Amino acid sequence: MTSIVTAAIILIGDELLSGRTQDTNLRTIAEFLAPLGVEIRQARMIPDVHETIVATINELRASHDYVFTTGGIGPTHDDITADAAAAAFGRSIDVREDALALMQPWYAARGQEMNEGRLRMARIPDGADLIANPVSVAPGFQLGNVFVLAGVPSVTRGMLQDVGRRITGGSVVHSRTVRAAGVREGDLAGPLGELAKATPEASLGSYPFMRLKGADVEYGSNLVARSRDREAVDRCVASLADIVRSLGGAPDIDPKD
Amino acid sequence: MTSIVTAAIILIGDELLSGRTQDTNLRTIAEFLAPLGVEIRQARMIPDVHETIVATINELRASHDYVFTTGGIGPTHDDITADAAAAAFGRSIDVREDALALMQPWYAARGQEMNEGRLRMARIPDGADLIANPVSVAPGFQLGNVFVLAGVPSVTRGMLQDVGRRITGGSVVHSRTVRAAGVREGDLAGPLGELAKATPEASLGSYPFMRLKGADVEYGSNLVARSRDREAVDRCVASLADIVRSLGGAPDIDPKD
Repeated sequence: MTSIVTAAIILIGDELLSGRTQDTNLRTIAEFLAPLGVEIRQARMIPDVHETIVATINELRASHDYVFTTGGIGPTHDDITADAAAAAFGRSIDVREDALALMQPWYAARGQEMNEGRLRMARIPDGADLIANPVSVAPGFQLGNVFVLAGVPSVTRGMLQDVGRRITGGSVVHSRTVRAAGVREGDLAGPLGELAKATPEASLGSYPFMRLKGADVEYGSNLVARSRDREAVDRCVASLADIVRSLGGAPDIDPKD
Repeated sequence: MTSIVTAAIILIGDELLSGRTQDTNLRTIAEFLAPLGVEIRQARMIPDVHETIVATINELRASHDYVFTTGGIGPTHDDITADAAAAAFGRSIDVREDALALMQPWYAARGQEMNEGRLRMARIPDGADLIANPVSVAPGFQLGNVFVLAGVPSVTRGMLQDVGRRITGGSVVHSRTVRAAGVREGDLAGPLGELAKATPEASLGSYPFMRLKGADVEYGSNLVARSRDREAVDRCVASLADIVRSLGGAPDIDPKD
């Protein structure tokens, strides 16, 4: 039996779309979800616009098992994700005592005032479960199948530690890479396509690269076999290595899974 | 008069969603579009699934002035973006002579066979305009308001050189940053929110950071003012610097625009 569990990721923030900030949270979440057997089906980057956040959460939570948002739960006026998540679920939102109880001793110990901005980070939708923040205390939260996380990468990563136990995973997708340096993707394409047709139980991807090697440009491709069936991946890897060898290359086979 | 011109970006490829590959093309395109006065309203990362690509192109081209796709126009079986773009526009697609005429001398000069995989890269939708590829010759294409670009970052960047002339831009969004190191976002939030309320002609963002500084963690925030009105940005920057100073910080003001 192969159970497929899906997720969608919503990366929130004007700075991602303006090019100011390079997102890295998608990859962090992908690496967190892969061993749990949760497949990310899409990711969206959207601006700090209330209606857009509400509509995107509602569209994606209806069509995926899990939704993760990052960004927009800090202390400033442009941090509007918590309110938007509450609106998406039709919940009220206010400063919540349980969030405040976590935050007050933290700030008190650091001599930082519990001002309006910091209080804003204790605004949690009614009925949401808190997600612990081991980095800077102000919590994220879970509403139904939606996990609302911070956007600062170290905090996003920290919050994921309190998410794993809430996930009912599925069949893990296994993946191995055969690196074909010095072999051109245009020459790999034919035999790769035949292998893909012959092994529908695995998906094969080809990711070309170019890099300087001394005075030359070295061309090559990373050939990736993915499947919920680990043996199918291993069979494909052997065939991929044969293809690379048949084209005069020396395959570099990823042993990890 | 401020004319607002919008774009959506579609980043195509299983490898982006699996976490295998870190996208950098969004940022490249954002930096390309900003000086043209084109505002990216959303970006989506989607897998190599025909129906998903078709539906996403059709949804976004109807609601944005321009759409850019990256990825999936190489020689292998999993490169299905060209066919999906053709389907989205109801066009036929086949190997096109003009694309072939570009590619044949290139491959001939390099002693590379014009095999089925490479021919696949000459498949261009009927009526599409080619986009030159100065890196590896196989072209991208434009169909209506949709630009279909390669996914390999150097090739994406190269293709953009042939896109600028096709864009009718809008009012440029000016942006300047005041770096407030050593000032906590929770303390900035109050005065920042008041400034945001008082200057609706600009949008103010706060992007906190933490970093190791010797044995300590330094906290701070990058405060960004954005507006189509350059003077409004400059006024905000002066006010932001005052706010940082009032909190005991030394603002580092980005002079560029």
